[in-house]
Amino acid sequence: MRLLLILILALCGCTQKNTVITPNGKSLSYKLDNGVKVFHLTAEPVKQEFAPGLVINAWGYNGSTPGPTIEAVEGDRVRIIVSNKLPEPTTIHWHGILVPNNMDGVAGLTQAPIEPGSNFVYEFSLKQHGTYMYHPQYDKVTQIGMGMMGFFIIHPKEPLGPPVDRDFAIFLHEWYVPPGASTPDPMLMTDFNYATFNGRVFPGTEALVVKKNDRVRIRFANLSMNNHPIHLHGHAFSVVARGGWRLPEAARYFGSTIDVAAGNTCDIEFVADETGDWALQSQKTLLSVNGIGHNIPNMIGVNEEDLVEKLKNIFPDYVPVGTTGLGAMFDGRHRDLKRPPNFLPYGSPGPYGVIDMGGMFTILKVLQI
Amino acid sequence: MRLLLILILALCGCTQKNTVITPNGKSLSYKLDNGVKVFHLTAEPVKQEFAPGLVINAWGYNGSTPGPTIEAVEGDRVRIIVSNKLPEPTTIHWHGILVPNNMDGVAGLTQAPIEPGSNFVYEFSLKQHGTYMYHPQYDKVTQIGMGMMGFFIIHPKEPLGPPVDRDFAIFLHEWYVPPGASTPDPMLMTDFNYATFNGRVFPGTEALVVKKNDRVRIRFANLSMNNHPIHLHGHAFSVVARGGWRLPEAARYFGSTIDVAAGNTCDIEFVADETGDWALQSQKTLLSVNGIGHNIPNMIGVNEEDLVEKLKNIFPDYVPVGTTGLGAMFDGRHRDLKRPPNFLPYGSPGPYGVIDMGGMFTILKVLQI
Amino acid sequence: MRLLLILILALCGCTQKNTVITPNGKSLSYKLDNGVKVFHLTAEPVKQEFAPGLVINAWGYNGSTPGPTIEAVEGDRVRIIVSNKLPEPTTIHWHGILVPNNMDGVAGLTQAPIEPGSNFVYEFSLKQHGTYMYHPQYDKVTQIGMGMMGFFIIHPKEPLGPPVDRDFAIFLHEWYVPPGASTPDPMLMTDFNYATFNGRVFPGTEALVVKKNDRVRIRFANLSMNNHPIHLHGHAFSVVARGGWRLPEAARYFGSTIDVAAGNTCDIEFVADETGDWALQSQKTLLSVNGIGHNIPNMIGVNEEDLVEKLKNIFPDYVPVGTTGLGAMFDGRHRDLKRPPNFLPYGSPGPYGVIDMGGMFTILKVLQI
Repeated sequence: MRLLLILILALCGCTQKNTVITPNGKSLSYKLDNGVKVFHLTAEPVKQEFAPGLVINAWGYNGSTPGPTIEAVEGDRVRIIVSNKLPEPTTIHWHGILVPNNMDGVAGLTQAPIEPGSNFVYEFSLKQHGTYMYHPQYDKVTQIGMGMMGFFIIHPKEPLGPPVDRDFAIFLHEWYVPPGASTPDPMLMTDFNYATFNGRVFPGTEALVVKKNDRVRIRFANLSMNNHPIHLHGHAFSVVARGGWRLPEAARYFGSTIDVAAGNTCDIEFVADETGDWALQSQKTLLSVNGIGHNIPNMIGVNEEDLVEKLKNIFPDYVPVGTTGLGAMFDGRHRDLKRPPNFLPYGSPGPYGVIDMGGMFTILKVLQI
Repeated sequence: MRLLLILILALCGCTQKNTVITPNGKSLSYKLDNGVKVFHLTAEPVKQEFAPGLVINAWGYNGSTPGPTIEAVEGDRVRIIVSNKLPEPTTIHWHGILVPNNMDGVAGLTQAPIEPGSNFVYEFSLKQHGTYMYHPQYDKVTQIGMGMMGFFIIHPKEPLGPPVDRDFAIFLHEWYVPPGASTPDPMLMTDFNYATFNGRVFPGTEALVVKKNDRVRIRFANLSMNNHPIHLHGHAFSVVARGGWRLPEAARYFGSTIDVAAGNTCDIEFVADETGDWALQSQKTLLSVNGIGHNIPNMIGVNEEDLVEKLKNIFPDYVPVGTTGLGAMFDGRHRDLKRPPNFLPYGSPGPYGVIDMGGMFTILKVLQI
Repeated sequence: MRLLLILILALCGCTQKNTVITPNGKSLSYKLDNGVKVFHLTAEPVKQEFAPGLVINAWGYNGSTPGPTIEAVEGDRVRIIVSNKLPEPTTIHWHGILVPNNMDGVAGLTQAPIEPGSNFVYEFSLKQHGTYMYHPQYDKVTQIGMGMMGFFIIHPKEPLGPPVDRDFAIFLHEWYVPPGASTPDPMLMTDFNYATFNGRVFPGTEALVVKKNDRVRIRFANLSMNNHPIHLHGHAFSVVARGGWRLPEAARYFGSTIDVAAGNTCDIEFVADETGDWALQSQKTLLSVNGIGHNIPNMIGVNEEDLVEKLKNIFPDYVPVGTTGLGAMFDGRHRDLKRPPNFLPYGSPGPYGVIDMGGMFTILKVLQI
């Protein structure tokens, strides 16, 4: 097991400093053309597996949501060729990046929308560094709601502060997938039932594996409808950047929960000085479980088992949960109750029984090597 | 067109430094009485046009929501005479302003409510400077929900930092106006369908017009039920004040999205160094469109046109949207589908086709003059 | 009356510096065992009175929600013996506190859940100071939703900055208790109808009583599903800590509203230099009233009285509110309308008529002594 983790660590690029790791994702490759870094993004419908047992019809880039992470360096000139394979027009806005007006990607205002089957070429020079995002600015409700987003990370020309050993990037998102269905509803505004780290829910989320005393950076991005308070266990981190820009030294602050605002990015840094498996999760409890709806009757204290079939007739979205709380659902005592297809039960086997979590939950593994 | 913009710029008071511009609104005039600045506010029902095609029954002050912007100077003594023309009592709380207890405007606690048809006189000296708010503190749910709010801006006695060339004030709010209705529902808590800048939705929002290299301040205020992350394109701004109070120099930070918390104000400043038309908008996508409900069936991939009339029988609030996303609605391909009266379709003609936005969206026009 | 307040002040421990006051609550006592501070927490169902007239079936610790405040000092070794009297397993996570991995309380990941009827002993040394929290990390949706949470406050070994005269701790939470019911629904995600300060709603909230020119600290904590913007009237406070950690001097800022993020704590400090009764309240208006649902028809401008019984047939949750706003409900003009049992009407008698508030509302009493 330990050897396996070391192997994973090596494969993940741990030895390669200052390269971003996008758990469950990857960085986008480029080719140089006369000094210009040329990237290709294809906007398209994707089949996204949130975790084994649940695949949804999302929209993304290059086969996934979020799309691949774009990495470049301050001062670079970049060209991004965008192909539209969606059933409707699109554009790309480079959120937070200082670009000329005609490269800003606002359909109708700065460019015509990219029609289905067409391409558009964005090209600009990078005048800043930090953690930014890309996303459509045409029919944002549908396109961002269906998963179209990705990181655009600009490394500084000269290193800033102490170098980090591991540099992770996690895009937050939330979805409503009706129980038994495969297509998320982008019109829903509040009662989401799946919340993802890089398009995955626990137990489908890849662990963040580091060595003891590694200096670790985690970059978060959020284009959902809500703030997401992400809590790291066992460590106090320093908030070093918000909205892409480094905070002045004097303005940095410590914490164990970072409230990542919609439309924003945040970078945190810490030294992983305690070995063990540490939770990294949303503190909004109802976004740390999977699949349940929120308009089902409250069964605490009720003998549910006789009622399940009757309730399903009245509430088609009804999913049996525990009558002593949700715990019975997590730990399998209710495992015989019928669940809808394409639906994730909660929880995953852990070293001390079931980890009764879903959604925005992953594990920071600090290894004693 | 260019001459027209220059004219608008002149009319907007661009030449008058340190005076606040409230887009789609105005500042409140006053008279001097023995050195006291005397203002009049009338609390009353108002007909508020969100944009051409949609007029709602709101509550506000002096004919609009938000009410007029009060401007004064640190050290001033001010008297505000409040007349109540609402169908129920009211008061005014001066949110964030240091006043004597009996001027604080909390009905029942610091004063009796102002009955319909009555007046109340508030008078106090201004001991601070910054961006503050006024709003009722009697039946807040209804009165703030229906639009009763306004800016109270206190200029510093001595200038702070570099003077700004343009100083804008934008009040954020959100509403639920049932499709076809005219009266917003102040009891609704989450699923809002119109989000306003100074009581207007795009395309009804006035552009912010500035000259290249102008130093620009935008003050935001929010008394709604949610944080609103406002994203400025093409520029990085500095966050210089929160909750009315200037941030210490060392604590200021840069960004392109500012999360304006409910109950708070924020001031941002930047130099408008890139010409062009730049979007200024909410990053919560479902609050950047107009009028749609959020409990309608998801039609992505469905042939909607045969179903519209049937769906309307089942979902009275049903508004046809696109079946390839909302794009078809914006760009007019669905323009023949029947919509309810007093309802805004999305989008507005732009230089490159339809700008498919509504709600909290406006344009920062940086002119090369 | 004045003598009574002085008495209250004395009883509340005002003369005892650097001890935390939990309004409507208390600190947990401990015994010393070979230098280790030993605390006992019992996780159990509790009957919680939100205010006279409304008692709910919650879950908490040692008889209340939130549980008692744990106070200790940086450098202390603490042992917390947890007994589980809930109908399902539980654990405790020490939110923000730097503990060894096996003390972190994540069911399945760092320990087996504590079965009903069993105990678990947590023991660790305190390496930091600040405002932290304790809560379960097993079936968080139900357990935190039902009220399981408490403060864990670690005092610094050496005093930091000017000592405070009064040090308050207020835990924020939100609930949905269906009208007429007694058990909150922990699955509900957004449309909450009661919002509490330390498990109480106004008028059940204890006032914060201080003397003029006292230096006052208020610590807030939040484990609900939303940010809560708390507004203090009549004073500008300094934000001195977030997430438990003191902000660097240069990064502190002033304000009158603090947006307390879910999963976070905040400490504010101010000098109470204006006598009087000052509101301290949530700025989210719909969370400052009690009991109403948010899906009831909008009756503004409608003659409601003839319709109440008919409406109740259609909307079982229907609670009559005013037809000129909610004011008529607060001030008693609608007091004859039938309300459900175990339901709080709004408002409470104040010195100038009814204070038409509920939920997260209390009074800071600054006494001229």
